[in-house]
Amino acid sequence: RPNKLSIIFSYLGELQKNRQKMRKLIHSIKVGIALVLVSLLYLLDPLYEQVGENAMWAIMTVVVIFEFFAGATLSKGINRGLGTILGGGLGCSAATLAQEVTGMGEASTIIIGSAVFVIGAAGTYTRLQPSIKKRYDYAAMIFILTFNLVVVSGLRAEEVLKLARERLSTIGMGFAVCIIISLLVFPTWASDELHDSLSSKFQALAKAIEECLEDYFRLNSEKDNQPGQPSSSSGSCKSVLHSKSKDESLANFAKWEPWHGKFGLHYPWNKYLQVGEQLRDLATIVLSLKACLQSPRQPSSSVRESIKEPSKAVGLSLALTLRELGESVTKMRRSQQEAVIMPKLKSMRVELNSIISSSKFGPLENVDELAISSFVFLLM
Amino acid sequence: RPNKLSIIFSYLGELQKNRQKMRKLIHSIKVGIALVLVSLLYLLDPLYEQVGENAMWAIMTVVVIFEFFAGATLSKGINRGLGTILGGGLGCSAATLAQEVTGMGEASTIIIGSAVFVIGAAGTYTRLQPSIKKRYDYAAMIFILTFNLVVVSGLRAEEVLKLARERLSTIGMGFAVCIIISLLVFPTWASDELHDSLSSKFQALAKAIEECLEDYFRLNSEKDNQPGQPSSSSGSCKSVLHSKSKDESLANFAKWEPWHGKFGLHYPWNKYLQVGEQLRDLATIVLSLKACLQSPRQPSSSVRESIKEPSKAVGLSLALTLRELGESVTKMRRSQQEAVIMPKLKSMRVELNSIISSSKFGPLENVDELAISSFVFLLM
Repeated sequence: RPNKLSIIFSYLGELQKNRQKMRKLIHSIKVGIALVLVSLLYLLDPLYEQVGENAMWAIMTVVVIFEFFAGATLSKGINRGLGTILGGGLGCSAATLAQEVTGMGEASTIIIGSAVFVIGAAGTYTRLQPSIKKRYDYAAMIFILTFNLVVVSGLRAEEVLKLARERLSTIGMGFAVCIIISLLVFPTWASDELHDSLSSKFQALAKAIEECLEDYFRLNSEKDNQPGQPSSSSGSCKSVLHSKSKDESLANFAKWEPWHGKFGLHYPWNKYLQVGEQLRDLATIVLSLKACLQSPRQPSSSVRESIKEPSKAVGLSLALTLRELGESVTKMRRSQQEAVIMPKLKSMRVELNSIISSSKFGPLENVDELAISSFVFLLM
Repeated sequence: RPNKLSIIFSYLGELQKNRQKMRKLIHSIKVGIALVLVSLLYLLDPLYEQVGENAMWAIMTVVVIFEFFAGATLSKGINRGLGTILGGGLGCSAATLAQEVTGMGEASTIIIGSAVFVIGAAGTYTRLQPSIKKRYDYAAMIFILTFNLVVVSGLRAEEVLKLARERLSTIGMGFAVCIIISLLVFPTWASDELHDSLSSKFQALAKAIEECLEDYFRLNSEKDNQPGQPSSSSGSCKSVLHSKSKDESLANFAKWEPWHGKFGLHYPWNKYLQVGEQLRDLATIVLSLKACLQSPRQPSSSVRESIKEPSKAVGLSLALTLRELGESVTKMRRSQQEAVIMPKLKSMRVELNSIISSSKFGPLENVDELAISSFVFLLM
């Protein structure tokens, strides 16, 4: 059985990898197309006469905001727009104010210099605040940049407003090209990614628990002699453990994404993060179960034999439960087994308890694991 | 004793926070100064006559590459320079090639359009490869951007080379301002940060182990009734657990940083990552020890009492060892206790073993923890 399982898993891994490659390829082609479209502003004479050198800003916008996930592109684009408009507005007013108050002399240079310093420092300090950094870092950066560019060129260019309008319109074109291509042509949704990664976490943990039990109760002594080798599922367990920052950024992008597929507009992405947190806690327990396997001090075979049956029963049904939960997350339907599984797990726990009190070495970890996983279970 | 400890810790936390604030403030002021300096290219007439509109690129460079850590600024700056030079060079050659082969007609437009597509798509695909993404993501982005800008404007501007040289020189000025201010004026080193975070991890784990023991053997029943409250050290334990990606980016920056303070040029940053990994493994074990505390099923007081002395001894000496190791990392000297502590830990383990076989409930986790932590210990 483990052999078949591992074949299936390696096959799924292969498929996953190829799908990943395919998505990267599609994304690259999309970026190429977007770049060609904005380059046409330069390359075609009638368009160039309209926008002139400002076509540069459209190209820059595409290169900078076109991200892998549709939500990331949207969020970066909106950030850029926000930063440009705010910074440009403030810069224009500051430049005109400085000119009206002091004329074109040196005094205005000093005023503008100090404005650059104050806005630059304050903006940078704002960027470093965690709450801003998480969602509006890029907007703050563009704000500083635009303010600075507008306020200093305000002294030179006669028609700052016209310049600003033209730049803004080319940035708008770049943004429009990005959004249309990113959202409409084979979109890659961060929400799909988050959804899949959550259910694959369930699968990975289930697999890890199964392997752990398998290893623990493999009674031939040749295995006992080399307890140190790290198993493959230990790696997947760890990747579950370290998925926090990736999940958070995915959820961040997913919140920007419009209604699509099975997801509504106000989909509970925060719940995903909470369940992910619980799964990470569970991964902690599974990893320390594994650590028990690697400990040089192992109970004798007879003791292990005595707790084999109930432990296996608990572990396998836990794994089964996790798989089912993962499945139900994938298919987005309520697990019907809830009513069945909860009492079953509880009764198994009682059984395990009785075994522990009668044998010398209790698999205390199993009990804990059970406690936590039923906690996870209750949470859903 | 725990009261005094917690006061000290809260005081240290306060200090840490203030230091963090101070560093952010200093960084903001540095950015402000750098912005004013590059703005002078615009604001002062003699300088403006030299560089003209290209002063824009200096401002852009400062805003974009000035990062919090000196190493990050350096890495981003070098990436930007690399990308600009490569992209500009390739763009120039492509533009002149297209002109020479086909003249200025429509054919060259088509050639340039396809060049934009191919380089854009290939560059984007390269950016998505993990090995590139980790260190050269920004260089690839700037490469695509510069290539695109140069190749399309090559059709319009008569003197592409002159334009490119001027832009490059202003970018160079922005880079120089950033590097000088970032490295010479109150520099914030990523290497210091990584160094401190490693030793504070030791402290956090030591504290967590101490608290855990305290909680476990607190025998008054009022505490037993409310086992669910999460302790403060559980949070710090989790932050140790989730420090992987932060540590990796710090190490990435630290590698760029020049010789300074106590660090040489080829400081073993990878060792830091390895020790961090071991500490995260240990954090896993400590967290599952904590999970034992929260489990509804607790051994009776008398049993706990029977294992209290040796467990406490082991736990406290573990905590002590961790603190000492953290200290020796901070001060960058070899721990002299190594020879003393290892045999002590081993003898304690034997003692614990004997207790486990004579009492009903073994703190099996402690043994594991011991196994792992001696592993950590041996590794250093």
